[in-house]
Amino acid sequence: MASQEIELLASALARLPGLGPRSARRAVLWLVKKRESALPALMEALEGVQDRLVECDVCGNVDTQNPCGICADPRRDAKGICVVEDVADLWALDRARLFTGRYHVLGGKLSALDGVRPEDLNIASLLARVEEGGIDEVVLAMNATLEGQTTSHYIAERLEAFPVRITQLAHGLPVGGELDYLDEGTLAQALRARRPVG
Amino acid sequence: MASQEIELLASALARLPGLGPRSARRAVLWLVKKRESALPALMEALEGVQDRLVECDVCGNVDTQNPCGICADPRRDAKGICVVEDVADLWALDRARLFTGRYHVLGGKLSALDGVRPEDLNIASLLARVEEGGIDEVVLAMNATLEGQTTSHYIAERLEAFPVRITQLAHGLPVGGELDYLDEGTLAQALRARRPVG
Repeated sequence: MASQEIELLASALARLPGLGPRSARRAVLWLVKKRESALPALMEALEGVQDRLVECDVCGNVDTQNPCGICADPRRDAKGICVVEDVADLWALDRARLFTGRYHVLGGKLSALDGVRPEDLNIASLLARVEEGGIDEVVLAMNATLEGQTTSHYIAERLEAFPVRITQLAHGLPVGGELDYLDEGTLAQALRARRPVG
Repeated sequence: MASQEIELLASALARLPGLGPRSARRAVLWLVKKRESALPALMEALEGVQDRLVECDVCGNVDTQNPCGICADPRRDAKGICVVEDVADLWALDRARLFTGRYHVLGGKLSALDGVRPEDLNIASLLARVEEGGIDEVVLAMNATLEGQTTSHYIAERLEAFPVRITQLAHGLPVGGELDYLDEGTLAQALRARRPVG
C-alpha cells in the first residue's frame, strides 16, 4: 500500500496502548491530512519531552525537572506523603487535586509470584523521608488488589516505629456503583466499613 | 500534575482519532516508561514522514514520492483504474491486495448539503486519464451511502462517452453478516442482486 515510511509510522503508533493496527492507520491518515498543523504539533510535543524526562530523586515521579514539580512546589503541604505503586497512580490522584501533600512512588508492588521483594521497591527511601522528620501523615494509596494490600500492610508495619499517622484509602462502593453490578469483595468491604448516617 | 511539557504531549496525542484524553495519558505514561526505545522510534517515524508527504499528481494518493508508489509500480496493470472517495479508501482496498490496477482519489463525494459540486472533486483529472487512452476498465468504488452512490452514478454518466467498461463494487451481505442483524437496505440490495447457485 503506502510507502515504507508511512507503514513505519503506522506500526510505531500501533504500539501505543489504546491504539490497535486499525486505529493506528486511521491516526496516520489523520496526521497525513493535518500535516501542516497536528503533525508538527505532535512532533514538538514529543521533542519537548524527549531527553528531558527524569525521575525525581525525592519521590520517584517522572517529570522534566528534578526534584519534580510537586516536590518543588512550596505551596504543597510538606507534612503529608501519599504512597502509590506507580507514576500513573500519582498522576491519577493528583489530577483529582484532592491531596495537598507530596507523593512517594514505590515503583511496583510486593509480589511473591513475580519475585518482587521489599528491597526491589522504593521503600528504604520512603522510610528515610519519614525518619528525617516533619511528616505527620502517610497515606497508603495502593491499589485495592491482593498484592497492593499486601504491600500496604508491609509498609504500615515498617512505619509503625515512627511517630506518624498511617492511613489508607477507603474501600467501598465506587461513586455511581450499583450494588447489583458490584463484586462480592467490594460489597463485603462496603458493609464491613459501614458508617453511621448523618 | 505533571509538567507543562508532559501535559502538552498528552493533549497532542489526545487529538489523534481513537485516543481520548484518558488513553492519551496512558500513552504518555507508556512513552515515558519507554523513553529509551519507543519514544525515539515514534519520533523517527514521524520525522520520516514529515515534510515528505506529497499528493500524487496522477491519482491523488498521499505518499512520500510523486508519482506515488502505486502509480510508479510497473507491475501494476495500467489498464484498470479504481475510483475511490478518499485516500483512506485507497489504502483499505490496497491492503486487501485484490485490485491489480491503479487508483484515482476523488477527494470527497458529491453533496448538495455540504455544497460539494462535481468541479470540487478530482473528476476532470479522471476523465483526462481515461481520455488519454489505454484504460479498459474503471471500477467505481464509492461508499455504499446515498452520497457515494450519487457520485458513482454521476461519474458513470460522464464516462459513458469513452470506450471503457464501467463497473462498481457488489452490494450485498458482508462476509459473516447475519441476516437478523443487517439493515433492510442491505437485505434489499442482496435480494435484488441475487445470483443463481453453482
